[in-house]
Amino acid sequence: MSNSDYSEQSPQTWRDKWYEIIFEADTPSGKLFDVLLLIAILISILIVILESVSSIYLPNKVLIDIVEWIFTILFTLEYAARVICARRPLRYIFSFYGLIDLLSIIPTYLTLFMDAETLTRLTVVRSFRLMRVFRVFKLTHMLSEATALRQAIWSARSKVAVFITFVLIAVVIVGSAMHLIEGGNNEGFNSIPQSMYWAIVTMTTVGYGDTAPTTVPGKALASFMMILGYCFIIVPTGIVSAELSQAGSGNSKKVTTQVCPECMSEGHDFDAIHCKYCGSRL
Amino acid sequence: MSNSDYSEQSPQTWRDKWYEIIFEADTPSGKLFDVLLLIAILISILIVILESVSSIYLPNKVLIDIVEWIFTILFTLEYAARVICARRPLRYIFSFYGLIDLLSIIPTYLTLFMDAETLTRLTVVRSFRLMRVFRVFKLTHMLSEATALRQAIWSARSKVAVFITFVLIAVVIVGSAMHLIEGGNNEGFNSIPQSMYWAIVTMTTVGYGDTAPTTVPGKALASFMMILGYCFIIVPTGIVSAELSQAGSGNSKKVTTQVCPECMSEGHDFDAIHCKYCGSRL
Amino acid sequence: MSNSDYSEQSPQTWRDKWYEIIFEADTPSGKLFDVLLLIAILISILIVILESVSSIYLPNKVLIDIVEWIFTILFTLEYAARVICARRPLRYIFSFYGLIDLLSIIPTYLTLFMDAETLTRLTVVRSFRLMRVFRVFKLTHMLSEATALRQAIWSARSKVAVFITFVLIAVVIVGSAMHLIEGGNNEGFNSIPQSMYWAIVTMTTVGYGDTAPTTVPGKALASFMMILGYCFIIVPTGIVSAELSQAGSGNSKKVTTQVCPECMSEGHDFDAIHCKYCGSRL
Amino acid sequence: MSNSDYSEQSPQTWRDKWYEIIFEADTPSGKLFDVLLLIAILISILIVILESVSSIYLPNKVLIDIVEWIFTILFTLEYAARVICARRPLRYIFSFYGLIDLLSIIPTYLTLFMDAETLTRLTVVRSFRLMRVFRVFKLTHMLSEATALRQAIWSARSKVAVFITFVLIAVVIVGSAMHLIEGGNNEGFNSIPQSMYWAIVTMTTVGYGDTAPTTVPGKALASFMMILGYCFIIVPTGIVSAELSQAGSGNSKKVTTQVCPECMSEGHDFDAIHCKYCGSRL
Repeated sequence: MSNSDYSEQSPQTWRDKWYEIIFEADTPSGKLFDVLLLIAILISILIVILESVSSIYLPNKVLIDIVEWIFTILFTLEYAARVICARRPLRYIFSFYGLIDLLSIIPTYLTLFMDAETLTRLTVVRSFRLMRVFRVFKLTHMLSEATALRQAIWSARSKVAVFITFVLIAVVIVGSAMHLIEGGNNEGFNSIPQSMYWAIVTMTTVGYGDTAPTTVPGKALASFMMILGYCFIIVPTGIVSAELSQAGSGNSKKVTTQVCPECMSEGHDFDAIHCKYCGSRL
Repeated sequence: MSNSDYSEQSPQTWRDKWYEIIFEADTPSGKLFDVLLLIAILISILIVILESVSSIYLPNKVLIDIVEWIFTILFTLEYAARVICARRPLRYIFSFYGLIDLLSIIPTYLTLFMDAETLTRLTVVRSFRLMRVFRVFKLTHMLSEATALRQAIWSARSKVAVFITFVLIAVVIVGSAMHLIEGGNNEGFNSIPQSMYWAIVTMTTVGYGDTAPTTVPGKALASFMMILGYCFIIVPTGIVSAELSQAGSGNSKKVTTQVCPECMSEGHDFDAIHCKYCGSRL
Repeated sequence: MSNSDYSEQSPQTWRDKWYEIIFEADTPSGKLFDVLLLIAILISILIVILESVSSIYLPNKVLIDIVEWIFTILFTLEYAARVICARRPLRYIFSFYGLIDLLSIIPTYLTLFMDAETLTRLTVVRSFRLMRVFRVFKLTHMLSEATALRQAIWSARSKVAVFITFVLIAVVIVGSAMHLIEGGNNEGFNSIPQSMYWAIVTMTTVGYGDTAPTTVPGKALASFMMILGYCFIIVPTGIVSAELSQAGSGNSKKVTTQVCPECMSEGHDFDAIHCKYCGSRL
Repeated sequence: MSNSDYSEQSPQTWRDKWYEIIFEADTPSGKLFDVLLLIAILISILIVILESVSSIYLPNKVLIDIVEWIFTILFTLEYAARVICARRPLRYIFSFYGLIDLLSIIPTYLTLFMDAETLTRLTVVRSFRLMRVFRVFKLTHMLSEATALRQAIWSARSKVAVFITFVLIAVVIVGSAMHLIEGGNNEGFNSIPQSMYWAIVTMTTVGYGDTAPTTVPGKALASFMMILGYCFIIVPTGIVSAELSQAGSGNSKKVTTQVCPECMSEGHDFDAIHCKYCGSRL
């Protein structure tokens, strides 16, 4: 019985240890695994990027293809290990990272059966694996920063939603108006979607210049819209700025929850030894 | 008498119920009506947008025209219902939303009597109905967010007015100076309005590039203006940011929910020992 | 003697009254004068702007010239009145507004003796008179807003100076580097001033596109610089935002300077009746 | 012995005095030296800039070359003086400023042995010496401003790092997606690095327009990315703004200058009655 218990515990321990290394990152070996994986992902992304430059790819076709296959096999082994170790394999497989992990190895295997050129472009899906960087960040002191950022953005979400709704309405209305004004004689405004694309390019102050108004009323409306867009950029900046200011001042407020045992006063600093109102020891 | 009273109260109740559904949105049926109307407006906008793309419109002319007519009739019925239910029909008809509602159904009817091509473009007025989205927002928790935004923008209005006046003066002066410098040999600066259009495009950092200085003094002045515009974007951002910060910190003002047991006054500070209005111990 | 006193006092009063109307703006007549002058300046600016558009000017040459002369004579009379009324005429003449007032009437008179085309462009100097708008603002509640803005910008001046120095060094270094990299084969980078112009256009995110890197190292450096410029826009925004926040919170801090007569505690709210620490009447 | 002591002390004093003048800036002579050096650097930079403009350089070749040599000899003497005076000469030579000082004089000497045209471009390295401006700033009241700025940026570093990582991931993913969508028929997207360059140009709202999407899905993705980039600019602005707000409010933290008469501790709140460390009455 103790033997059976031991044998049962043994593979459990073996899987647990692997789980700890692969999925968690608060042990030295787990951290090392994640850092090595991250480096491998970065190099593999670099290979995909270089592969797309024909002047680099064509002379080094064989070398790049071999490196590509090495990484694909490594990531396949990693994927298999993840599925085996995961306590709930199906949950991992259908999670966001699980699907990205799968999608980042499939295109290379498909090149065995199909036309290469289309598939080379599909390996680009692997780029999404770069998001794993954030998991390694979780280990470092950046966790709290990322959390603070996420909270600030989250608490500003409904304000930003109201704002984006308003921007989109402005884009539709101005886009339609510009189509009405410039539509006849300007190629870039000959449909409302085209005009809306121009409106987005203008309101975000990107301003490619591939489409630009040419008539006087069109230029006047565009000028008005630019100043509007200029005013618009202010509002969400102010929102997030205010949210972060408040979140920050909340975090940095060094006040204990301790209550004075004598006068029950609150709001003492963390470094306070005596109650600042009645002088009794905290 | 009770009968007459009942019969008189009956249509009143009927109109009141419709009014509640169409104009208000704090009952389940009123909310449902507004959400359905919003979906209908969104689809109808999409139709207008697609109608402007000749490659989509020409093969599906009949289908799009039928859908267009269905929505026009639906919105006409809705408009009629609004006029009937409204307690002050004239006030609704001449309100902003009333005029938009009317203008968004007229162009389609005019196509029966007039040349279609011009009118297709006029249905674009319907885009303004998208602003109804905000009415539905009023129901949700976004109301307070929208109010906070509006208050922050409103309290910053005179600062923003001073700012925009200064921007416009800068646009006139720099526009005139650029016309003076570049006017002779650059098509894009051959009149002051043209130069002012360029100045707005540059100061808002949109920068199409359809008009750009070509002479050395022109480029020098443009460089100066860009750095000025770069500095300008800071000021209103800071204004709204500060307004929102204060609005936010005003809300989160460290005030207890404690009520004075003597004078029932509220709004005491967290560190208050005595009521600040009547002096009795809290 | 009293007669002489009277006669001496009479023109003094007459000049004082005119001074009050022309230079000050806190009496109804003075305010009216400034508002009328502002309208005249706005119309005269509009005339100068329209004059530069040949399609508008050429058919209405006589009308526009007459209106131009009417405004010039009006502004000449105003200038004469200012010189007569001013307590220290020389100080006014050599003040900023005095010089602008003089410069805005001279070009029209010069057209009597000289070639018209050059002078038409010089009347543009009148645009600077638009700055008078701010004097009228002084009357309204916008004064405090403008003051708050000016104070915030002034208190941030040394931070902004450090910042602009850093931006200019970055422009010189990146401009030189781009000249080194792209200089040989790209027309837009064939001298350092040209490259610096490009660097300013890029760092301020205007991005005309008339000059753009074409080589791989040039594009890499440009990408780096854009992200740098993207980070740069944050810093001064944060500075002014923080300054305004503090200026605002200083203004809105509703704390009396009153001290509790019993316990000498400070920091009482404006609406406090009793000391919040010891409960005695303030 | 006193003589030997004197003679030994004498060169020490001589080197110390020179060290004070050249390296430090808190004595009048040291300040004067730094200001004069700064002016010399500015003029020499101007010469390098003008040298690159062929229309200015060619007619004044001899004059510019002479001025160039005068500055090179001056800077060589300054470099020698620095090496002699420095307490740890090697440490200075291999410091950042030491290397810049050396690199800014070498190119001119190399023109004696090598082809001039390449070397003219190398003197551009001297631009880095402009960074010395900050050393002179240390003398002025701008020191504290620069320190406040540096601290705010430093305390925001991990937030900004998280942010930049996210931006770079977005650039890789969107760049790859655009290469996939537009790659076939648009010159500007025929490799992933090209697409990433476009993505950076777009997300930073520079928008040259040399590369722009032409297909409908490409324009849709670009629109989405612009709104994303528009939202992105908000976050770091908010971060730095909040950091600076807190740094500012930290400085103005409402702390009395009162010192506890018993334990001599500082930093008591304005509303403290008793010392929070020893409990004695303040």
